[in-house]
Amino acid sequence: MRFVYFFGNGFAEGNGSMKDILGGKGAGLAEMALAKIPVPHGFTISAEVCDYYYKNNKTYPPSLKEEVEYNLKRLETTTGKKFGDKQNPLLVSVRSGAKISMPGMMDTILNLGLNDETVIALAKSTNNERFALDSYRRFIQMFGDVALGIDKELFEDKIKEIKKKEKRKFDHEISIEGLRWLIDEYKKIYSAQNKSFPQEPYRQLWIAIDAVFNSWMNKRAIDYRRINKIKESDLLGTAVSVVSMVFGNMGDDSGTGVAFTRDPSTGEKRRFGEFLVNAQGEDVVAGIRTPYPLDYLKQISQEAYDELLKIFDILESHYKDMQDVEFTVERKKLYMLQTRSAKRTAKAAVKVAKDMVEEGLITKQEALSRVSTDQIDQLLHPYFDEKAKAQAKLIAKGLGASPGAACGKVVFSAQKAEEIGSKESVILVRHETSAEDVAGMAASSGILTAQGGRTSHAAVVARGMGKSAVVGCEDIVIDYNNLQFSTNGTVVKEFDTISIDGSTGEVFLGEIKTLIPTGLDKDLAQILQWADEVSKLYVRANADTPQDAKVALEFGAKGIGLCRTEHMFFAPDRINIVREMIVAKDTQSRQKALDKLLPMQKEDFKALFKTMQGLEVTIRLIDPPLHEFLPQTDDAIQEVAKSLNISVDELKSTVKSLHEFNPMLGHRGCRLTITYPEIAIMQTKAIILAALELKAEGIECFPEIMIPLVGIDEELKYLKNIIKQTVDDLMKQSNILLKYLVGTMIEIPRACAVADQIAKEADFFSFGTNDLTQMTFGFSRDDAGKFLFDYLAKGILKEDPFKTIDTQGVGALMKIAVEKGKNANKNLRLGICGEHGGDPESIEFVHSIGLDYVSCSPYRVPVARLACAQAAINRKAEKD
Amino acid sequence: MRFVYFFGNGFAEGNGSMKDILGGKGAGLAEMALAKIPVPHGFTISAEVCDYYYKNNKTYPPSLKEEVEYNLKRLETTTGKKFGDKQNPLLVSVRSGAKISMPGMMDTILNLGLNDETVIALAKSTNNERFALDSYRRFIQMFGDVALGIDKELFEDKIKEIKKKEKRKFDHEISIEGLRWLIDEYKKIYSAQNKSFPQEPYRQLWIAIDAVFNSWMNKRAIDYRRINKIKESDLLGTAVSVVSMVFGNMGDDSGTGVAFTRDPSTGEKRRFGEFLVNAQGEDVVAGIRTPYPLDYLKQISQEAYDELLKIFDILESHYKDMQDVEFTVERKKLYMLQTRSAKRTAKAAVKVAKDMVEEGLITKQEALSRVSTDQIDQLLHPYFDEKAKAQAKLIAKGLGASPGAACGKVVFSAQKAEEIGSKESVILVRHETSAEDVAGMAASSGILTAQGGRTSHAAVVARGMGKSAVVGCEDIVIDYNNLQFSTNGTVVKEFDTISIDGSTGEVFLGEIKTLIPTGLDKDLAQILQWADEVSKLYVRANADTPQDAKVALEFGAKGIGLCRTEHMFFAPDRINIVREMIVAKDTQSRQKALDKLLPMQKEDFKALFKTMQGLEVTIRLIDPPLHEFLPQTDDAIQEVAKSLNISVDELKSTVKSLHEFNPMLGHRGCRLTITYPEIAIMQTKAIILAALELKAEGIECFPEIMIPLVGIDEELKYLKNIIKQTVDDLMKQSNILLKYLVGTMIEIPRACAVADQIAKEADFFSFGTNDLTQMTFGFSRDDAGKFLFDYLAKGILKEDPFKTIDTQGVGALMKIAVEKGKNANKNLRLGICGEHGGDPESIEFVHSIGLDYVSCSPYRVPVARLACAQAAINRKAEKD
Repeated sequence: MRFVYFFGNGFAEGNGSMKDILGGKGAGLAEMALAKIPVPHGFTISAEVCDYYYKNNKTYPPSLKEEVEYNLKRLETTTGKKFGDKQNPLLVSVRSGAKISMPGMMDTILNLGLNDETVIALAKSTNNERFALDSYRRFIQMFGDVALGIDKELFEDKIKEIKKKEKRKFDHEISIEGLRWLIDEYKKIYSAQNKSFPQEPYRQLWIAIDAVFNSWMNKRAIDYRRINKIKESDLLGTAVSVVSMVFGNMGDDSGTGVAFTRDPSTGEKRRFGEFLVNAQGEDVVAGIRTPYPLDYLKQISQEAYDELLKIFDILESHYKDMQDVEFTVERKKLYMLQTRSAKRTAKAAVKVAKDMVEEGLITKQEALSRVSTDQIDQLLHPYFDEKAKAQAKLIAKGLGASPGAACGKVVFSAQKAEEIGSKESVILVRHETSAEDVAGMAASSGILTAQGGRTSHAAVVARGMGKSAVVGCEDIVIDYNNLQFSTNGTVVKEFDTISIDGSTGEVFLGEIKTLIPTGLDKDLAQILQWADEVSKLYVRANADTPQDAKVALEFGAKGIGLCRTEHMFFAPDRINIVREMIVAKDTQSRQKALDKLLPMQKEDFKALFKTMQGLEVTIRLIDPPLHEFLPQTDDAIQEVAKSLNISVDELKSTVKSLHEFNPMLGHRGCRLTITYPEIAIMQTKAIILAALELKAEGIECFPEIMIPLVGIDEELKYLKNIIKQTVDDLMKQSNILLKYLVGTMIEIPRACAVADQIAKEADFFSFGTNDLTQMTFGFSRDDAGKFLFDYLAKGILKEDPFKTIDTQGVGALMKIAVEKGKNANKNLRLGICGEHGGDPESIEFVHSIGLDYVSCSPYRVPVARLACAQAAINRKAEKD
Repeated sequence: MRFVYFFGNGFAEGNGSMKDILGGKGAGLAEMALAKIPVPHGFTISAEVCDYYYKNNKTYPPSLKEEVEYNLKRLETTTGKKFGDKQNPLLVSVRSGAKISMPGMMDTILNLGLNDETVIALAKSTNNERFALDSYRRFIQMFGDVALGIDKELFEDKIKEIKKKEKRKFDHEISIEGLRWLIDEYKKIYSAQNKSFPQEPYRQLWIAIDAVFNSWMNKRAIDYRRINKIKESDLLGTAVSVVSMVFGNMGDDSGTGVAFTRDPSTGEKRRFGEFLVNAQGEDVVAGIRTPYPLDYLKQISQEAYDELLKIFDILESHYKDMQDVEFTVERKKLYMLQTRSAKRTAKAAVKVAKDMVEEGLITKQEALSRVSTDQIDQLLHPYFDEKAKAQAKLIAKGLGASPGAACGKVVFSAQKAEEIGSKESVILVRHETSAEDVAGMAASSGILTAQGGRTSHAAVVARGMGKSAVVGCEDIVIDYNNLQFSTNGTVVKEFDTISIDGSTGEVFLGEIKTLIPTGLDKDLAQILQWADEVSKLYVRANADTPQDAKVALEFGAKGIGLCRTEHMFFAPDRINIVREMIVAKDTQSRQKALDKLLPMQKEDFKALFKTMQGLEVTIRLIDPPLHEFLPQTDDAIQEVAKSLNISVDELKSTVKSLHEFNPMLGHRGCRLTITYPEIAIMQTKAIILAALELKAEGIECFPEIMIPLVGIDEELKYLKNIIKQTVDDLMKQSNILLKYLVGTMIEIPRACAVADQIAKEADFFSFGTNDLTQMTFGFSRDDAGKFLFDYLAKGILKEDPFKTIDTQGVGALMKIAVEKGKNANKNLRLGICGEHGGDPESIEFVHSIGLDYVSCSPYRVPVARLACAQAAINRKAEKD
């Protein structure tokens, strides 16, 4: 079995399709080599070795040593340099890289091969002692940190010390003597830790390889995979690429850069990148120095710049996707170090996908797979109210690195962000972020850094997470010790509230009102139109008001799947009438209250139907238990009793009689309207009269009356008869015919078991997966918090079933319901209106069992539209 | 199509197998005629006519009139009498009778054919004017009451009036003049109601036939069918038998009687019956006069008596069942009027069934079908504590007509009994009962009547219902007006409490402690042994204590199917330790409390295992939410806080933090032990140590550890691992091997859907159908009262799903669970331990889906054993 793959100089043993075993980096280098793009020579150790390493108690396959040494010899031959040579030493980088990019999560070591002797040779052969010493001290520092676990702050403190002594601002300004001093001090740091710096290059190499494989299972990498839902079982591990060094820190004719083939923030087709002169790669990513724009490369070498642009085109047409590359210019010569699919903002993802279809690079279906539902969700993120923003106090401005508006309390450590971020909104403020901060960033609403550019760690990770981020905000001076930062005279302390705008880079004091976007931009509208073309499911919205309905329409909803009528009952002008109805002692006085409600509900429905002209509108009859409408505290009872003109004792006794031990399983839903059919009659009248009056005005309506909480076919039959009778009477009176449906929620486990019986009485089923999940699991959503967290932590549940449909349990019942229902009633319409209706994984499931539509909150409609398309594409792919 | 069937004189067109269309009475008369048993001649109009009558707007098939008239002619021919004849008039009775006996529920009219002219002829031809007049006034009264709906009290008032005037005690003592006066007065009653008595016999006949068919749908008949669960769809309706009259009221050489071929109270093989001299049939049944014992017939005619006994033997060997017959002696000549399977007490049913097997009359399986599970239940009815009874005040003694002890508040009307009988125990006290009182009797705990014998309405109905009854208690004088009765100087008012003993006929003042029977009598033990032989299911008991376990064993339980360990936690010496455990702030202090509980629980289990030597004992780990163990009121909290030595605020905050919105769906069952595995460990230790210590003493135990509320396979896996580990450690320490099982309740709908996954981890499933029903329906048992009553009343549910398994919904899920479970684990043991485990209909269902055992409360064990056998017999019959 082969474990090592060589590449370089137009030749490679691997290729771009071998990401599984070569990792993204190794595959990219091999592919670029094959495409005759200049890359440094090197070889990649397969990720299969990582798999072996963990399965065999951290040992390697026996043949590995020989293979690595053989390829190192090849590398010496092709580069003409020799490992540990005192004249012309071969230096290498040892780089991690898994199938799926996990930027910055695993370890990389540069300049390996340097020691007290080769550093002299390097100085001589490059005629650049400063460069050689700088490379050496970098290597000692990195090796200590990464391979031996020495706290990197110890090294940084020494850099600060020498810069202070020499009065320098930047690292690359440190003198040769300073570097020598640093190297000595670094070695002392090793000794103080009872460690020694290995002088032997082969030992360096194997320790470095160990370190990279070990980094596969470090906390940050595990966190990253968890947060990004990367399944370990899908990956073999990390590969290790050993690449001959090229140096961006050889002087002012050298440098290193990161670039994107399109703008990763907006998706616009313009090159975008950053370049640091006389620096090595990690200086860019770490965000320590604020870099120049990419164009600056021209000033070093127009040739190298032109070549880079040419390579961009080659890469894009080769990979058919926007690329994110790393490159180094060594004495004006360009080397590509890495290429990969670029991380991008949601906005960019949409624009790039759409543009590439128009450019003929990809198909519409490919475009739909290029945009994730999470990204669509981000596009619907809040933004600041312009008026409020205009009045807010702007205290600083940095680079807008990840769009979206965020407000929150300032915290200065990732740990603090993790602690309180789940309870309240926080903004994480750091000089810079690093891989250790990932979990804290995930817990924050936004990130603000004082240093770094748009390709810094903070920027890249925030964009990936869809968090607002402002980076490189040099206006702010952070004082970690006193937990505060100051900027232009303003001091902001821990837990003070700030607002940041990740699009503009602005930082404001205090909280600014945020707004939710309405409507879709042109690019997204186009993508979603393509989505609708391939979807089998269509998307409705859960909307109770004309305002909600309008938003839903703007987002492309094809109707309303759930209008909760009781929400109308809580309006201040109605709640007391509802209470009158509840405390009524007999049908007659209950009817009196209902008669007052009827015209109000009718007007509600008229407004809703008018907004939704002609589209289907599903209206659910009253659902919650009656006690939810009554006051519960003594004070409130007193007040309400007075306004209802009844005694406090009487109201108290009603409240008491309506008390339930398990309201979730109590007197609500259709059970209420079976006890009090007059409520169903009033609501039916309001719905149908609204529709008839509009129809008389020439406005089409299509009401669907939905009966909640049905578990027994006779419940539906009983209420349907009452409704039909009511509707028939109204149609006769008005002499207008109206199309309407009567259907039911499927939210009781029993309803699934007897769906055939129910389907005979129903025009449609709408799965209420919130309640269905509660009852199928026997979990009260209000109470499950006590153990659900523990269940997820102990792996008893893989996912929160209230977020994503539990396909094995709840889903199995849904499948039974669909099959039985369709068998009994071929014309049965099937939908879902629980919160899962907006969850992409759940949408894929309901696609697979053959529902007709999903209904979700208006702001989830675009997400659901894309999810419906992706479900159709994925399922088709599975079948093909 | 034929609608009328003639019988008489050793000839019949129908036979005993035609109950469907001839009704029990018609079929019995035909069968007796064929067996050459003396019956009066007559003919039966098929129940198909009743069916036609109701389906055709109360009209008859066109051919019916002709057919009836033709058969009337045949009757005239065979009797030599003529309808309406002025010399020798034919008189007939018009009798109801359905396939299933509904004693007294429908109408019968005697002496039809009498009018102002034929009454003179009857007087002449019988040479008995008194008899003729008495028959005539009876007919006018009965016809008025039954056919024309005139209040019978109006007639009775007149009888009282004449008896007072003539100073007579009994009806048959009224003088000829008195009878003439009565007939005149009766006719005036008709006129006062704007009705007239029809003189024309054919008109009389058709009105009577109408009346009988109409009585099929009267309130009492409908109530009776509902109470006795007789499905209308199983019946065509009532047949109408028109039978030539024979007269028990022709003088002192005539009479009428009712008899049983065995004792209907005890089942002993001795003739049993009652006889009234010079009376017609309704006088016996109505309980107006207290009759003589059957033997009295000898004094009238030894020949008739001997013939009757011979007929008894013929009937029993013919019908292979104990018979209940009506007969009349007309001038010493015996006529059988009816024979049917006799109603009997539970005790008698068991004894008769067992005896008949031993007599070779029936098979064991037939015997098992002859006893109903309701009857077994009655045999386990309470009886009085002898000591308490000896001290109680005996206030009266009547006939013990239906065994069992009952205490309750006195009410004097069936209506009042219906009103309050569902809320508290009542004893219905009446002069006599009649068909109108059936619903009130059903609502009472016991019945006490001042008049009537052991075959009176009250006695027959009470025995059928399994209610205690004392009848013919002539000591008591009832004053309906003042709602009280007096007896030997004691006055008992409405709502005073009395106790009655339906076995001895004793009536006591106040409440007497009642006891529940233990063990089985010889006859029942034999029947249940036969039951066990044919059953596929076996029966365990739900028992928490050695006392319960002992009762269960005595009743034949084969093990314990559910021991609820938390019941042990409520003991006064433990509850505070449990509370200590709950308020514990960390694992360590929780462990301290658990360490105190361990030896206590161990002793509990030792005692239980000892009682159940060697039989399987299923022990459920802690199930209820923790808040159930904490005090809820302020006072109680204060007290408990003091005894736990913590502050009131601390305890209050614990109580508050444990509050749940829907405790049914909250933190309980295995969710608790997953959060606090140390509780599961303590309980496992207690169980296993108990078993190991007993085993060391040579006592075998077979513990089965049951984990409640599992809905996810990983829950079971997690706890099973902990339990196995604990058990392994204990076995290693003690060096004793122990057989034990680990299984789960199936009580969450999801568990049914993923039963295959769960079965892989489980040795057994025990269906917890209480919770499964709650969650499958989404009904909280504590709250469903608000609508369940309405659901049953409106026919939305046919049965209370908490009493009998809802086979269509809950049952469908159980079936899925059984199939999936068995597929995944062939050795999976299957049982049920919800309350349905003792319900015969539910047992039939669980038999059909292939469970191995049922577990029910100890007192239901005998019922369950019979139900298991009947399920096997019924299912076998279905297949054959």
